[in-house]
Amino acid sequence: MGYDVIVVGGGPAGLSASIYTSRAKLKTLLIERKCCGGQMAITDLIENYPGFSSAISGFDLAIKFNEQSKLFGTEIIYDEVASIEDGSTKKIITMQSSYETKAIIIATGTNIRQMNIPGESNFIGRGVSFCATCDAPFYRDKNVIVIGGGDSAVQEAVYLSKFAKTVTIIHRRNKLRASKILQEKIALHPNISVIYNSILKEIYGKDLVEKVVITDIETNKNKDLKVDGVFVFIGLVPNTLALPNIKLDSIGYIMTDESMNTSVPGIFACGDIRKKQLRQIVTAVADGAQAAISAQHYIESL
Amino acid sequence: MGYDVIVVGGGPAGLSASIYTSRAKLKTLLIERKCCGGQMAITDLIENYPGFSSAISGFDLAIKFNEQSKLFGTEIIYDEVASIEDGSTKKIITMQSSYETKAIIIATGTNIRQMNIPGESNFIGRGVSFCATCDAPFYRDKNVIVIGGGDSAVQEAVYLSKFAKTVTIIHRRNKLRASKILQEKIALHPNISVIYNSILKEIYGKDLVEKVVITDIETNKNKDLKVDGVFVFIGLVPNTLALPNIKLDSIGYIMTDESMNTSVPGIFACGDIRKKQLRQIVTAVADGAQAAISAQHYIESL
Repeated sequence: MGYDVIVVGGGPAGLSASIYTSRAKLKTLLIERKCCGGQMAITDLIENYPGFSSAISGFDLAIKFNEQSKLFGTEIIYDEVASIEDGSTKKIITMQSSYETKAIIIATGTNIRQMNIPGESNFIGRGVSFCATCDAPFYRDKNVIVIGGGDSAVQEAVYLSKFAKTVTIIHRRNKLRASKILQEKIALHPNISVIYNSILKEIYGKDLVEKVVITDIETNKNKDLKVDGVFVFIGLVPNTLALPNIKLDSIGYIMTDESMNTSVPGIFACGDIRKKQLRQIVTAVADGAQAAISAQHYIESL
Repeated sequence: MGYDVIVVGGGPAGLSASIYTSRAKLKTLLIERKCCGGQMAITDLIENYPGFSSAISGFDLAIKFNEQSKLFGTEIIYDEVASIEDGSTKKIITMQSSYETKAIIIATGTNIRQMNIPGESNFIGRGVSFCATCDAPFYRDKNVIVIGGGDSAVQEAVYLSKFAKTVTIIHRRNKLRASKILQEKIALHPNISVIYNSILKEIYGKDLVEKVVITDIETNKNKDLKVDGVFVFIGLVPNTLALPNIKLDSIGYIMTDESMNTSVPGIFACGDIRKKQLRQIVTAVADGAQAAISAQHYIESL
């Protein structure tokens, strides 16, 4: 008994991997902690996933991925992985059970680092965004703020400035952490400004974001700002599992090669959880397909 | 005047790249030689591109990619690129005109090496296939032949043996070129056999493939074989352009890093034309998105 492949995580990477493994007649189990689709499922509108010429909701796309995977025979269960044991047969111990498998594909993704302030969670997809590449075109001629001061925050601010009327960077320190070149770019964009020494306290609105409250951390004074969008770029948190001997980078992302091999034979990683450059649905599904093919070759070599 | 980005090639990689660049407000021209969609457009049925839970024809998917790209403002023209001139502004000379651009994304793909025998082209998608990963599930309990004797031919034969009733490898030499490990695998699959010293002469059928004629090259005698599928794995031919100083591998594929940078700054390559492991629609679109982001960063740095 047991499986050929167990995929941990049911976002786009994990679902794509399971589409490929189950279609290749490998007995596949996918274990998802919450509900299928991962970050994709909580994305309001997706218009850059090739194949959908009219924008589709992340939830609808997640359902399509899910159906497709089950169609080829993937078993999907909802449970949380507690630990993984390596060996000639590998073992996955979940909160409710345990499973044996020849190969494991880890696709646990990341969580966005949130500010944890009132209004933030409520307005996700309705004014609060964590991805400019995904959502900037929805803010044409609107006023947006960007939270953060690192490279990605400033880069995303520059990108947003092509769409939005004004972009205001809110940064808690007295200077940006971003590289000099990026900082110089801000000067070239008259519609970008920076408010230093400040943090966001609260986000208000009815259906959509309308206003934020900013606190000056030196004077402790609050002020209101009318905005349509809040882009938060204070980092991602990889959903790292307790893994035996798997090489991670300093932040906790799994190191892989181009074939999605981790440092442990028979354990593959794909999608946002691996150390990579571009975290998009389209790169996650490609990773998933590649991990599946690598797992298939690994199993054939056993 | 001129463009921010010119994409050469309108297959999945090029179309995905253009979706990303035009959505990022980069002025984008896509130049396609024949008709949009590349290899995808001549693929009968695609069931492993995530998002389409019922199989879609390659042509329909190509139209969707095409529409989506034009929606964001990509200009698409049908013309053939004759040469590329590098420089601070790059120049693309086509058969009919010439265009200036800041960055170039090469997505010219590959052509499948065909046998060039009667019946081969007519039955593509109706019994003749060049991709087991794509088409094997359509040949459940059928009789198929595999043309070739290298690693990929034997690997694909082993894969096909999970679906097909019988798999017969037709090889023109007296022994296989594939690695020993792969050859040993054949012995483990009683439904795989090999016919040596033989080439395919002709493919027959009405709507679908029904029969092939095989020539023994030692005796020069012909024999008929009743088959449902012909899988041809005699190699791919990269559609290499005349490019200044772009590093290629020995076969002619363009060398890139993970960000799709070629050896020439501002010229990127993506999809099947680059040296890579897995050539699938899903990996082509991911490459395209990555090339677009890299081109965007390159243009911002100018």
